[in-house]
Amino acid sequence: MDCLGWAAKDRSGVLSPYKFKRRPVGSDDISIKITHCGVCHADVVWTRNLLGNSNYPVVPGHEIAGIVKEVGSNVQRFKVGDPVGVGTYINSCRDCEYCNDGWEVHCEKGTLFTFNAIDADGTVTKGGYSSSIVVHERYCFKIPSDYPLASAAPLLCAGVTVYTPMVLHNMNQPGKSLGVIGLGGLGHMAVKFGKAFGLNVTVLSTSISKKEEALNLLGADKFVVSSDHRQMRSLSRSLDFIIDTASGNHPFDPYLSLLRPAGVYALVGFPSEIRFSPGSLNLGMRTFTGSVTGGTKIIQEMIDFCAAQKIYPQIEVIPIQYATEALERLVKRDVKYRFVIDIENSL
Amino acid sequence: MDCLGWAAKDRSGVLSPYKFKRRPVGSDDISIKITHCGVCHADVVWTRNLLGNSNYPVVPGHEIAGIVKEVGSNVQRFKVGDPVGVGTYINSCRDCEYCNDGWEVHCEKGTLFTFNAIDADGTVTKGGYSSSIVVHERYCFKIPSDYPLASAAPLLCAGVTVYTPMVLHNMNQPGKSLGVIGLGGLGHMAVKFGKAFGLNVTVLSTSISKKEEALNLLGADKFVVSSDHRQMRSLSRSLDFIIDTASGNHPFDPYLSLLRPAGVYALVGFPSEIRFSPGSLNLGMRTFTGSVTGGTKIIQEMIDFCAAQKIYPQIEVIPIQYATEALERLVKRDVKYRFVIDIENSL
Repeated sequence: MDCLGWAAKDRSGVLSPYKFKRRPVGSDDISIKITHCGVCHADVVWTRNLLGNSNYPVVPGHEIAGIVKEVGSNVQRFKVGDPVGVGTYINSCRDCEYCNDGWEVHCEKGTLFTFNAIDADGTVTKGGYSSSIVVHERYCFKIPSDYPLASAAPLLCAGVTVYTPMVLHNMNQPGKSLGVIGLGGLGHMAVKFGKAFGLNVTVLSTSISKKEEALNLLGADKFVVSSDHRQMRSLSRSLDFIIDTASGNHPFDPYLSLLRPAGVYALVGFPSEIRFSPGSLNLGMRTFTGSVTGGTKIIQEMIDFCAAQKIYPQIEVIPIQYATEALERLVKRDVKYRFVIDIENSL
Repeated sequence: MDCLGWAAKDRSGVLSPYKFKRRPVGSDDISIKITHCGVCHADVVWTRNLLGNSNYPVVPGHEIAGIVKEVGSNVQRFKVGDPVGVGTYINSCRDCEYCNDGWEVHCEKGTLFTFNAIDADGTVTKGGYSSSIVVHERYCFKIPSDYPLASAAPLLCAGVTVYTPMVLHNMNQPGKSLGVIGLGGLGHMAVKFGKAFGLNVTVLSTSISKKEEALNLLGADKFVVSSDHRQMRSLSRSLDFIIDTASGNHPFDPYLSLLRPAGVYALVGFPSEIRFSPGSLNLGMRTFTGSVTGGTKIIQEMIDFCAAQKIYPQIEVIPIQYATEALERLVKRDVKYRFVIDIENSL
């Protein structure tokens, strides 16, 4: 029992201390002393068994940052003492065309998720709400030395989840206009990336309460309350791109009508279903795309981009003892904009 | 009353002769003696008032081919005797960025449809089930002299409707795999374009009855009955692109699951709504796009491509007196694969 974590033991989702064993460090593995872990909506999903497939005890957390404390004999990219990150998956077949292209998240045989997944040896993977983790070096990322580890953690899921579709669908063309739906952990990063890409950024939110910070803290150019029909009409056919980070259900047609012809709508949330009128797409030759995190290649690219551009998530650092309450606040959308657990100083 | 057409007078959709006047030939106009007109599903929609906005009498038809019989003083691209085509729209503002880019179908001020639309002078536009038409030359297309006019007609709507999304979404990369849903006027053209682009083409159909022709007449590589779960499963994650030409409602998730990661699904039909699970897109980083006909630039490109590649629609040539029955058969999907009215010899 070399690892101390915090786990949910049942669907109440209440977290409490839990000791378990990490695997020995294999020749391609690195062992990481975890210093920080971001709090993602996925942590709510599996600690509370919302999808009915939780394998208790669940040690959540897939936005992991820390320091390398041991490396296997074949490890090339890391040495002891290096700052390092781990994201939403920790293995894949490493042999299919997607793995070979650096798109391991779409591995033919399926990726192994960082927590609540059944590993090859039958054990359940355990995430970053814990003191350490052992991972094949391929699924670990270099954190530039001047980038704070607490800030790095949310990049590993929230950051890459919005960065990937923005880059793949050309939402990084300076001068174009971007709409961001939802201003949480993902949405606020989309605003920051949008500004770094040179876009004109409009935040579309259900609540006026986020206006001040959207404009003055995050640097958005415009803020529109989506229930205000007059404001929405004034945006009709004006946006080149929309990225939808909202976690709940909402209608799609009103937002699609804001896109210019040939505009792109990228969904990264998981509403219960997608439903819209064919005219909303066809008549404007519009495109609706979906995305989930990204491959190892684009994750490293995104981290390096954040370091070079000095892009940092807005975080609220909390002790592990606050994790259950943090998940509760996340459900209520009461966070600006990402909780990060200070594992090093509280566990 | 210089023009003889056939019109629907009420929502029965029954067509009968109807005389009316075409406008005088303006300086930028050409007058066309219509020789052929394709029969499109749109003709059913407006002759029967299915959208509740029919302006009777409705002279349908927007797949028009003919010969130039008079040109205005400023006309540059056409002379008397030239073979010419007219498609689904006959005017636009000619001043917005979409018009300037040759994407008049997305004109800021709206395009003027070829029939059942209110023209600037308050009259209702009248389509190609008629002896002649007067159109601004910008909305007319050159038909290469060796391309039969009867075959040219269906290119103007069915042809460009599938060609546009295929080209814009890179479905013309040799060696890639294409699925075609629905094998009617649009679908059979998608198969032909797919083969001309060097793709591996799979036809996805609800009925085994079209298998023989799909493979042997149209040249598809594979035929799958979409209700056969075993066949469908064997195609899972195998297609780079799908073009959906089905006119009726159907579920989308089973087809989306056939796409490889980052695959593209292009919808050109108008089901009553689009509805699918976010996982069908997000987990495979897939894209769902819509399209409707195309701009003048791509229409001419498509016609020239068909002539160069010797791509011809499969048509059943009918006299105008058969038009009402043809529309009825179209509704029953009893056509291989496009009716074309021989206006010249029957009207």
